[in-house]
Amino acid sequence: MNSSISTSLPDLARRLDDIEPFRVMAILARARALEAGGRDIIHLEVGEPDFATPEPIVEAGIAALQAGHTHYTPALGLPALRRAIAHYYGERYGVSVAAERVAVTPGASGGLLLAMAALFNPADEVLLAEPGYPCNRHFARLIEAKARSIPVGAATSYQLSAELVAAHWGPHSRGVLLANPANPTGSVVDAKALRAIHGVVRERGGWLLVDEIYHELIYDRNEPSALALGDDVIVINSFSKYFLMTGWRLGWLVLPEVLVPAVDKLAQNLFLAAPTMAQHAAIAALAPATRGLLEARKAELKARRDYLLPELQRLGFEVSAKPAGAFYLYADCSRFNDDSEAFAERLLWEAGVAVTPGTDFAGAEGRRYVRLAYTAELPRLREAVSRMEAWLRSG
Amino acid sequence: MNSSISTSLPDLARRLDDIEPFRVMAILARARALEAGGRDIIHLEVGEPDFATPEPIVEAGIAALQAGHTHYTPALGLPALRRAIAHYYGERYGVSVAAERVAVTPGASGGLLLAMAALFNPADEVLLAEPGYPCNRHFARLIEAKARSIPVGAATSYQLSAELVAAHWGPHSRGVLLANPANPTGSVVDAKALRAIHGVVRERGGWLLVDEIYHELIYDRNEPSALALGDDVIVINSFSKYFLMTGWRLGWLVLPEVLVPAVDKLAQNLFLAAPTMAQHAAIAALAPATRGLLEARKAELKARRDYLLPELQRLGFEVSAKPAGAFYLYADCSRFNDDSEAFAERLLWEAGVAVTPGTDFAGAEGRRYVRLAYTAELPRLREAVSRMEAWLRSG
Repeated sequence: MNSSISTSLPDLARRLDDIEPFRVMAILARARALEAGGRDIIHLEVGEPDFATPEPIVEAGIAALQAGHTHYTPALGLPALRRAIAHYYGERYGVSVAAERVAVTPGASGGLLLAMAALFNPADEVLLAEPGYPCNRHFARLIEAKARSIPVGAATSYQLSAELVAAHWGPHSRGVLLANPANPTGSVVDAKALRAIHGVVRERGGWLLVDEIYHELIYDRNEPSALALGDDVIVINSFSKYFLMTGWRLGWLVLPEVLVPAVDKLAQNLFLAAPTMAQHAAIAALAPATRGLLEARKAELKARRDYLLPELQRLGFEVSAKPAGAFYLYADCSRFNDDSEAFAERLLWEAGVAVTPGTDFAGAEGRRYVRLAYTAELPRLREAVSRMEAWLRSG
Repeated sequence: MNSSISTSLPDLARRLDDIEPFRVMAILARARALEAGGRDIIHLEVGEPDFATPEPIVEAGIAALQAGHTHYTPALGLPALRRAIAHYYGERYGVSVAAERVAVTPGASGGLLLAMAALFNPADEVLLAEPGYPCNRHFARLIEAKARSIPVGAATSYQLSAELVAAHWGPHSRGVLLANPANPTGSVVDAKALRAIHGVVRERGGWLLVDEIYHELIYDRNEPSALALGDDVIVINSFSKYFLMTGWRLGWLVLPEVLVPAVDKLAQNLFLAAPTMAQHAAIAALAPATRGLLEARKAELKARRDYLLPELQRLGFEVSAKPAGAFYLYADCSRFNDDSEAFAERLLWEAGVAVTPGTDFAGAEGRRYVRLAYTAELPRLREAVSRMEAWLRSG
């Protein structure tokens, strides 16, 4: 082994300059280090429900393994799972989706990569809301397309609007990707606003991609799936959040028919297939018998939001609109500190509460915000509030 | 739903023109259709061992699920698995690898994408052997880099050589990716030739990437891992082939230290993490107690090769060198038909034997070859040979 070689290695790819690590991972690593040293840390940082995967889903995964289902599936997924997903849209949303339009993917991440790779050329622009899920712009960067971030705020419930899309659409714009509900804000685009965005995108000859991975976690109302707008919309979805299957790495796309062969060949080449046992388990996740368990978890998440939001406001955080979905509160902490990274760091170190700085989701504006994921049980949330209260008073 | 929309959808990305579907998938689909109609088909087409995952690995996966390990792991993998992989290199290859240099990936596919994304800019060239695994050039295409295919033949055992690399290295060349053993030929680059290639690549300031996913399936001799060349080499590996975990979707990279933070942030953004239960199961795959089971499967594969190769030659297929590894025979069928796609189609339809046309692995030259994966038990291989013999005589 010649360890001197490392000093003369060639350069890495330029795209790495534009791809940022998740700051939340650094927070998580520091939190774990503190825990290893005996500290009690309340974890509100990671975008992952604290619940384990429900029993019937786990049992189906185990049964698949016991039955020897350890080989590859077709690239677009087990036919039975594609049918189950198609059926789900009929039952849950009243939208008719052919099973052939469903592509099962390795997480929603896999779906985002496939969709972007199928649609966008280098220099093509994809319009995104900022704040937003940071990976979206990094997927665009990977394939040399450009993410055009559109700042959104309270005026449009932290979502894109038809007006914003029209105002920012340029000669190289080729699509819009929005998340409904959004991460980090939990904000929802309602049916009318979504229809208007779809109209603008279609008029301009672009693609509309809608990330619905938190769509089943809209708490106070019913919203249609974007698939109701027409069969030209691309929907990205996941078994991770509502279905509580994060570690299984499984998501799906619903595609316009013409895109299916393109995504099939991309999936063959980029992934071969999604994990087999996860696909068998996911069939159980969609079974009517499992729904009650998932709804109970959803009710628990809603109770947490309803507790935490007014408490944060009482402590002096500003949350401009009650988030309608997901499991995040995006809270303005600029009253306490104009640098959310320093704020998050101190909050962790001094009060034992881990949150994510807004700079994971937005540029300079992110310095005013932190994201709290209500992925801890109510008693822990109460403890977090009381720690923060004492800490803010003492600060 | 307005189905007329589909007729006016915008164009797909240009890269799709350069990315081909696996022809093997069409063969597989036709084989399944024939089976559904009652035909008995011998499957020698798919690049996947027929063996199920061994019991101790499955049991570890089940135990992980029962223990509630259903959440995300760190992006680079469970620390215990990274340590186990590092340890494996010491035990198996006598190479010292720090656990921090190991990145656990969603399949070797995930590893190839991460490595290429970390290293190559648009227009950068990656040198590849042709015939070769088709996804390699498609990963390059995805990120707008260029795959430069170098035709290889019997003279260099169907592998790249230092001379070939030097002769084809151009002003935009930035790296070499070789598979050892190779798919579809099963050919192996020996230690001396590999060292010479490494020397040429290093001299020219490029990266050497070595795909070792079939490395444990070298039958008649011991070859060192490319990691023995120095800590500047990037090795791609997988739990799919030797460890018989295809459907689990798990692989790994061993990286130069400087690359680890880059691959970490790419993995966070592109994949979040590899499947959790697969990672727990993989620790059992590397346990000494499992090795005996895996070696028994390897012995079975070797016995199949030793049966099938002379039989194919007897039937009139040309196989220029005894493949030293993997589980493929790349056989020249041009004596029977100068179009291997038509040959494979007729062989399936008329004799019930499914093989892959060489056009999955090479351009025009691929029309002379078919790939046979010896992924069926010996009695089925004997049946395949007798069917082919009767069919070739009658044709």
